Amino acid sequence: MRMTDLIQKKRDGGVLTAQEIRWMIEGYTKGDVPDYQMSAMAMAIYFQGMDIEETYALTMAMLDSGDRIDLRGVSGIKADKHSTGGVGDKTSLVLCPMVAACGVKMAKLSGRGLGHTGGTIDKLESFPGFTTALEQDAFLRQVDEVGFAIAGQTAELCPADKKLYALRDVTATVASMPLIVSSILCKKLAAGADVIVLDVKSGSGAFMQTDEAAFELAKTLTEVGRRAGKRVVAVVTDMDEPLGNAVGNALEVKEALAALRGEYQGDLLELCLTLGTQILREGGAAADDAQARAMLEKAIESGAALEKFAQFVRAQGGDPAAVYDPALLPEAPVKLEVPAAAGGYVGRIHAESVGLVSMHLGGGRATKEDTVDLAVGVVLHKKVGDPVAPGESLGTIHARTEQAAAQAADMLRDCFEIAPEPVTRAPFIKGVVK
Amino acid sequence: MRMTDLIQKKRDGGVLTAQEIRWMIEGYTKGDVPDYQMSAMAMAIYFQGMDIEETYALTMAMLDSGDRIDLRGVSGIKADKHSTGGVGDKTSLVLCPMVAACGVKMAKLSGRGLGHTGGTIDKLESFPGFTTALEQDAFLRQVDEVGFAIAGQTAELCPADKKLYALRDVTATVASMPLIVSSILCKKLAAGADVIVLDVKSGSGAFMQTDEAAFELAKTLTEVGRRAGKRVVAVVTDMDEPLGNAVGNALEVKEALAALRGEYQGDLLELCLTLGTQILREGGAAADDAQARAMLEKAIESGAALEKFAQFVRAQGGDPAAVYDPALLPEAPVKLEVPAAAGGYVGRIHAESVGLVSMHLGGGRATKEDTVDLAVGVVLHKKVGDPVAPGESLGTIHARTEQAAAQAADMLRDCFEIAPEPVTRAPFIKGVVK
Repeated sequence: MRMTDLIQKKRDGGVLTAQEIRWMIEGYTKGDVPDYQMSAMAMAIYFQGMDIEETYALTMAMLDSGDRIDLRGVSGIKADKHSTGGVGDKTSLVLCPMVAACGVKMAKLSGRGLGHTGGTIDKLESFPGFTTALEQDAFLRQVDEVGFAIAGQTAELCPADKKLYALRDVTATVASMPLIVSSILCKKLAAGADVIVLDVKSGSGAFMQTDEAAFELAKTLTEVGRRAGKRVVAVVTDMDEPLGNAVGNALEVKEALAALRGEYQGDLLELCLTLGTQILREGGAAADDAQARAMLEKAIESGAALEKFAQFVRAQGGDPAAVYDPALLPEAPVKLEVPAAAGGYVGRIHAESVGLVSMHLGGGRATKEDTVDLAVGVVLHKKVGDPVAPGESLGTIHARTEQAAAQAADMLRDCFEIAPEPVTRAPFIKGVVK
Repeated sequence: MRMTDLIQKKRDGGVLTAQEIRWMIEGYTKGDVPDYQMSAMAMAIYFQGMDIEETYALTMAMLDSGDRIDLRGVSGIKADKHSTGGVGDKTSLVLCPMVAACGVKMAKLSGRGLGHTGGTIDKLESFPGFTTALEQDAFLRQVDEVGFAIAGQTAELCPADKKLYALRDVTATVASMPLIVSSILCKKLAAGADVIVLDVKSGSGAFMQTDEAAFELAKTLTEVGRRAGKRVVAVVTDMDEPLGNAVGNALEVKEALAALRGEYQGDLLELCLTLGTQILREGGAAADDAQARAMLEKAIESGAALEKFAQFVRAQGGDPAAVYDPALLPEAPVKLEVPAAAGGYVGRIHAESVGLVSMHLGGGRATKEDTVDLAVGVVLHKKVGDPVAPGESLGTIHARTEQAAAQAADMLRDCFEIAPEPVTRAPFIKGVVK
């Protein structure tokens, strides 16, 4: 088999066999297939696509390139969740304790990542002493006993995907449906859960900029996941503004705690209830959607979800005091309101740009070596559709210095599009694909 | 400027600016732009194409990546010729002396190359003592005094093209119009001639498998060449069989000498007369095509072309005796006729497969280190359209051993498609694009 022939076959619209795809991925992982051939293949796939069989074969080949987490020692149904990413996404912090409180276990691997805020791991380090460096045994035991754990990745899951993703990132081949699907799913399959719920973002700031593309992605993800023997559901959600109101590490933790205390109503809660509903139903903890949703709402009202979160923090070495008293979490010394220049209605909030404000304040990470300032960030006071009076605050900047705050305020103001006429917000949950 | 952004721009159908293309090619030549980005770009260009402005900019950027031959010291008009390649192509050996005998000078750089036979340089080494290792000064002096020279490349012409071509070869991105055009033209521009005549092959064995594609290539080549300030003509020719009758190094030299002696009538001569006509007219040596063709025919009849070839061999250190007595050229010990299994008419001769016969006999080069057997090869006795009686010879195998000859005979028989009904040969010269 020659890689050049496989590239040509795909370039000319041919269908690669499972054997060809496996040969290619094994060769790429070992270094026998060089980057320059793989990037040409990725671009050919970008243009010619892959059918379901090919996408499945690519997913399985990448899965088999590395280790898998064996969750069989954990009793009951295990679920996992993935989001295609977004500014202000603190879903895991709310969803995992809610679901665990309702009896379905979640074993989540997370990363620090590069981006506008730190990853889930960074956010959780807002609790003094908290660690995500769990040994495999401790991780599994905690999932079994507490109901969920969030750990950094230790095993080498899907090295082929890691290598290919880094290559796609610098060759303009990220935005390819089969490459996105296989990249997401191989890691979820390696993580070993029975039920996988996927949050597919749609909108100008997302991978999938149209609803059509987002639903196609959702459909492909569920279909390929099912072929791999998993129960997979995808929820398509709007991403024309940041999720929730907080963007920043400790600020997002505070928002998540507010949601768990029942003091937050909005898109973040709606998303967690929707994702949780799918998990409880697919996981067999609830007979139908209505029952599942009622269970989740009760877990919040009763305080069971918040209690579960405190157990989780304690189990991973953190001080849970801040779970009940968020004022103990890191707090920035400078706070600055951002008054609206003119009145009207919020037409859009550029999520990516809000992310850049957080980045500017020091809340994110441009290179692996950067340290993240947990305290800084932005809290929005207005979301899409909200009326705004001239001078009313659009949001609060949480900064390390006055100077950084002033610059961030100007940046944040530019993130808002204010319309003169009332704006109707599109439904946040666009659909559920099973 | 970031290469990823340029790849994305081209991927999305955008038009790259001359500045962007220059930055990319300069970076690629220096190694700042890695192969894996360049191959993704090449694949994006394969799918999205390039307009004339982009193709011109790419050509000029690759031209400027290396040295140029300065022909200003040579008096009069200088011409150059390029063929998009083909089995049995000994055009330069016939065309150069014909044109030089008519007063237009030709400064040709040639290579050994990999392929079914050696390159022009290998073929010329059939003359004992002949060398193509000419110093720049000697090369220019010979062009001026003899009228033509064929030398190996010493200066570093278009290193960007060399690097990019090697990459395209292993990433299935050879067959892209703008990449083909820029690759051909940058080298011709670097070689410094005023008039450039291009032989564009069309047919199943060629880059361009349809006439439509071949004419588009011809049109693009002339258009981009003109923008670069050159007089460029492209001749589109059929390639549904090998050019001429001989395939093999010394065998091709013998055929070229026969043509120069006026003892050969056929597609090879027709091609050389057509290309030569364009050169004489564009070079100002003839007022029109009719005059040009008459001059070329006279150069053969009078023996002036053959005499010019002998001068050339002598000037480059070779013994010209074989020019007048081809029996002195290398000759294979074994000759084997290949009788037709059945009668009919020759419908097609698979040129690539005939090339493989020559390769099998040792006449070609698979790696740079291989030595070429100058004596071996194939002489066809039948061409497309010819009637064939059962048992009549289709060709003669010239081999080193009986065993190699027997295998080659079977291979050669399979190269022929014999039809029961008379076959009308398509016109060999399909058109001239100015």
